[in-house]
This record gives sequence, C-alpha cells and structure tokens, in this order.
Amino acid sequence: MTKQFVDHVRLSDDERRLVILDQTLLPNSRTYIELDTAEEMYEAIKSLRVRGAPALGIFAGFAMYVLSLGYEKSVFMDRFRQDAEYLCSSRPTAVNLSRALKRMTAAAEKSGGDLTALRRECQAILDEDIAMCTAISRYGLSLLKDGSTVLTHCNAGPIATSRYGTAIGPVIMAAERGMHVGAYCDETRPLLQGARLTAWELMNAGVDVTLICDNMSASVMAQGKIDICFVGCDRVAANGDTANKIGTSLVAIAAKHYGIPFYVLGPTSSIDLDCRSGRDIVIEQRDGEEISKLWYSRPMAPEGVRCYNPAFDVTDSSLISGIITEKGICRPPYDESLRSLFR
Amino acid sequence: MTKQFVDHVRLSDDERRLVILDQTLLPNSRTYIELDTAEEMYEAIKSLRVRGAPALGIFAGFAMYVLSLGYEKSVFMDRFRQDAEYLCSSRPTAVNLSRALKRMTAAAEKSGGDLTALRRECQAILDEDIAMCTAISRYGLSLLKDGSTVLTHCNAGPIATSRYGTAIGPVIMAAERGMHVGAYCDETRPLLQGARLTAWELMNAGVDVTLICDNMSASVMAQGKIDICFVGCDRVAANGDTANKIGTSLVAIAAKHYGIPFYVLGPTSSIDLDCRSGRDIVIEQRDGEEISKLWYSRPMAPEGVRCYNPAFDVTDSSLISGIITEKGICRPPYDESLRSLFR
Repeated sequence: MTKQFVDHVRLSDDERRLVILDQTLLPNSRTYIELDTAEEMYEAIKSLRVRGAPALGIFAGFAMYVLSLGYEKSVFMDRFRQDAEYLCSSRPTAVNLSRALKRMTAAAEKSGGDLTALRRECQAILDEDIAMCTAISRYGLSLLKDGSTVLTHCNAGPIATSRYGTAIGPVIMAAERGMHVGAYCDETRPLLQGARLTAWELMNAGVDVTLICDNMSASVMAQGKIDICFVGCDRVAANGDTANKIGTSLVAIAAKHYGIPFYVLGPTSSIDLDCRSGRDIVIEQRDGEEISKLWYSRPMAPEGVRCYNPAFDVTDSSLISGIITEKGICRPPYDESLRSLFR
Repeated sequence: MTKQFVDHVRLSDDERRLVILDQTLLPNSRTYIELDTAEEMYEAIKSLRVRGAPALGIFAGFAMYVLSLGYEKSVFMDRFRQDAEYLCSSRPTAVNLSRALKRMTAAAEKSGGDLTALRRECQAILDEDIAMCTAISRYGLSLLKDGSTVLTHCNAGPIATSRYGTAIGPVIMAAERGMHVGAYCDETRPLLQGARLTAWELMNAGVDVTLICDNMSASVMAQGKIDICFVGCDRVAANGDTANKIGTSLVAIAAKHYGIPFYVLGPTSSIDLDCRSGRDIVIEQRDGEEISKLWYSRPMAPEGVRCYNPAFDVTDSSLISGIITEKGICRPPYDESLRSLFR
C-alpha cells in the first residue's frame, strides 16, 4: 500500500543528495531530479519545481543537511548561514521556507555543526508534517463513510505537504483503508492546480476521481453527486472567515444552497487569531494574462481586455460547517472554538 | 454611433455574395469572408465560422437568396430545394437554420422563384430578429441606471443573433445611449465563449468590460461590484426553470446569496410550455477533452482522467427574478406569466 505516497521531497538512498518530483512537469511526466548544489536548490524553488507551503519547509530542511555535508569545519557556520540566506531569497514571502531555514540554522548553531543533529532536525520537520497531515486526515475521515463522494477545490494534497496532504488527506486515507470514497475535483482556473495536481494525486492514490470545470459544482450538487466538500486554507481569521484559493467561497455558497456540509482543513499554523475577520485579510491580485493567455497556444481573450484576477477569496464563516485541524474539528461559534485550540 | 454594430452576416454591397465575420478567428482577428457557393456556405456553418441560433437563421436567408441568383429559370425550384437540403445537413439539430431554410423555400414556391420576393423574405428574417433583440434590450435597459454594473455568463450577444443580442443587449443599448453601464464577463469554461466572444463584443461596443474566471463571480459580488445579472437561455420550461450554458445556475445561486437580481433574457421562441419543469430537460454531455486538452499547448490534466462535461445546467425558477422576452418581462409565478405570453 505504498502506491499512494508521493515521495516528492526526500534524500537520495546514499543521503548525499536531495531528490524532488519536478512539479512543473506534472501531470504529463513523473520526473524526479537530484539536487546537490545551493544554486540547483534555489532554482528548484524559484521555478516552482517544488511548491506548497509545508513542502517548502521539508525541502529547506533536507537542502541544508545536504549542503552542510560539503562544508569545511573551519567555515561551517559561515557557509551554513550564507546558503540559508541565499535559499530564503528564492521566495521571500514563503513563511514555511524561512521558518525551516531558521530552525536548521538554530540546530547547526546549538550543535556546533554536528551532522547527526542536523540529520535529526530535518527528519523532525518532515515527521511533524506527516503527523499533522495524518491527524487532519483522520479527523476528516471520521466524517466520511463507504460510498461518500467529496468535492474539492484547488490543491492541498500530498505534493504541497507530505504523505496525505490536508484537504484531500481524508480521501487518500480512505482509499488506503480500502473504503470506496469518490472525489470530484474543480480544475481551479486560472492556474489549474486542481486539474494539473489534485486530479493527478487522487488518481495516483487510486481514488475514483472526476475532473470538472469550476462552473460545474452546482450542477453536480443539484444531481446529488456530492456528499461533502473539503477545501484547504491559506489563512483562517479568529471568527472562522477563511481565505483560500479563488472560487472557494462560490463552492461554499452552492454547498449551503444544496444543504451539503462544507469543511475547511488545515494546520493550526494557518489560524491567525490576530486577524479578527475576513475583512482584515488583504487579497493578492495577480497578472490578468494568467486568464487571457497562460497555457494557451494563442490568446483566448481580446487583446488588451481588462482582467480581474484575485488569487484568493474569503469564505464567510457562516458557510463553514467545521474547521478541521490536527488538534480536532472546530465548530461554530468559531470565535470560541478556534481560540480554545491555543489554550 | 455605428461602431457597436457588428455586421457579422450580411450581403456584399453589390448584393451578389454573402459576407460573414469569421467567428473562429475571434478574438485575435476581425476577418470578413465572402461566400457565393453552397459548398463555401456549408463549410462556414460546419466549421462554426458562423454560429448562434438566430445568426444561423439570418445566414440561411441570405445564403438562399445569393444562391438563387445563379439558378436557371427552368430548374429553379429543383436547385433551390437541393441547396436548402444541403445547407440544412451542415448542422441538422440547428432549429433556426432549418426553420429559415423552410421559410425561404416556401417563399420561393409561393412567388414562383421571384428574386424580389426572396430578397424581401431574407430581409424579413433579419429585421424580425433585430426587432426581437431590440425589444428585449429595451425591457432589460429599463432595469439599469447610469452607473449600473452587469454580470453576464457565456455568449448571447450580437454575433450570435443580430444588432444588440439578447443577454448583453441592454448593456450595448445603454452604451449606445451614452449611459455608463459596466460589465463583468465570466470566461465560461470549457469553450470560453465569454472570453473569446462576449468580451470582444462588449469592447467592440465601447462597454467598460472586465473579464473574470467563472470561479470569481462570488468574489466580485461580495465586494459590491455587481448590481444585476443578465444571462441568455437555451430553453425555458413552463414553470420558469431555465436551461442555459453550464455555470449559469452557480451564478444564480451566488446572486441569490448576495441579494442581487438575476434575469434571464431570450425570445419567446425559447419558451417551451410543453416542458413542465427543468427535470424534463435532457442535458447534452460533451467530450471530456474539452476540459483536459482543448486550447492548450499541452494536456493540462492527467492522461486518462475522467471528466464530466455537461453543456448546460438548469437554473431553478426560484432563483430567477424575471424572464425578459420581446413581449415584456415575466415575473413569478412563471406558470402564469409565461403562459400569458402566448394568449
């Protein structure tokens, strides 16, 4: 039953190189590449060959371990800090990346550059992520039964995290246990993470998956094909309002209309109690050409048309049946249940 | 103020050839082609160089007139019927095409092949469509005011019909009158009629249009950017349930959630009183590769993934604020208001 685990960020068998699944070649090719220089690692992050917040943290841990194997004892910490800073600059806004690099640097300082200690630390980053994903998946699985069908949007699966992933973790865990749980997967325009990544992960895990366009969710719900919705989260406010990939709130509204439960899945590290509600969340605006030109063999919209391309939307907490974290399932009122996670 | 009218199906200046805007080259090129043989006309329909139910009717009228200019008197009706049958076979399910061909054939028979009578008949088909679109647009315009912003889905504009079109007719008419009415236009996956055609038509008419992905409608509604939704219809049941392009019902559900009025616009010929409700409407299923491969420079979903690709969905009449026809605006309960149109 190892088929469903994508070893997308790991050490080579001799533990001297970093091996990653090149996500830019998905879904057309499953190609692993080996990295052993800081320049190759920087390029892999920059070009999104590795992506997904937790996956970047795991990558950073293994990367610093591999690089540290080549440092002379006399300049160990200088080289370590230099490379950590360099890797961090590849995606300056990626919190998990900088957090893992800081954690590895602290371990190097504390141990005086001991390789065994560093090997242990990078393994701990991975193991903690697997434990988090496994716990979330177990709580999510408790909401499914044999024959259930889940609708998901965007990508919060194994290759963005580790092992099971978050939003589709319960579905992959169900498949692993021999349950029959089906999935409908929104393609997630404009970047198509659902079509390119989530559908691939679910097929890879042996899940019976059907790909739909984002505008078809109401249609499949109306036909009774969907029992529950599972989505990931980029940031959850103290009142439960949830920022996630653009289109998530539309799925939530349709689910409410058809009386279908809608759950958000993510680690407690996504919950920001300092953010009171969705109104405080700033939404990143992206280039309109992602809508009009990207992926296409020719432009598919009039030259010069204005496009509005927000990366995220905010799902109102009133539309959310529960928020599933590694510490359990929070229910409304979220102001209380989310805060209790941190006591 | 002729800028906004796309003369997409017309006679050449010397009235001896049929001129069409090649819709397959939109939005990248505005290319008109001249047709004077039945083979060229057949190919233009088959290849979707001309499309849209009413536009096909107008095309058929002009086509038969142009062809009839070349018939010998002795074999006039034989040649006429032969060509009409041939053109009809290019898209056998297009009702407006076969209806217009029958109408032209009847005019030819009645007049004994009189070219003046045929010229009058094809003009009547166009004029009636313009009158229909104009009336629908006027009723729709009565719901707009200066500064309104309309959200639309798919394409029911000028190039699918004549002059103003139906769903976006009120917006184009508003622009013509110097009103400031903005539009948001869903791209309409998988065939992208919104991005390729509607956005082009609206820009062409001088409307301030913004293109969005289908999953962004809730986001723009939540931000208060939308005052009203206008969509077309493929078929309206006696109770008001409306079949239209896939994704229409999702827009309607979001509009209801945000308290935004949602209107269906179309000719009374789309209303089918013999169809009691949406449950009686059979939804066409299309090839999954439209989702996974079409338009793209490489496949954007895993090889062999199952896709569900319904061409239409049904919007429940409870979500529809009104149905705008050339005879006026019908309000709930639709069982009564729609029937009264035919009395």
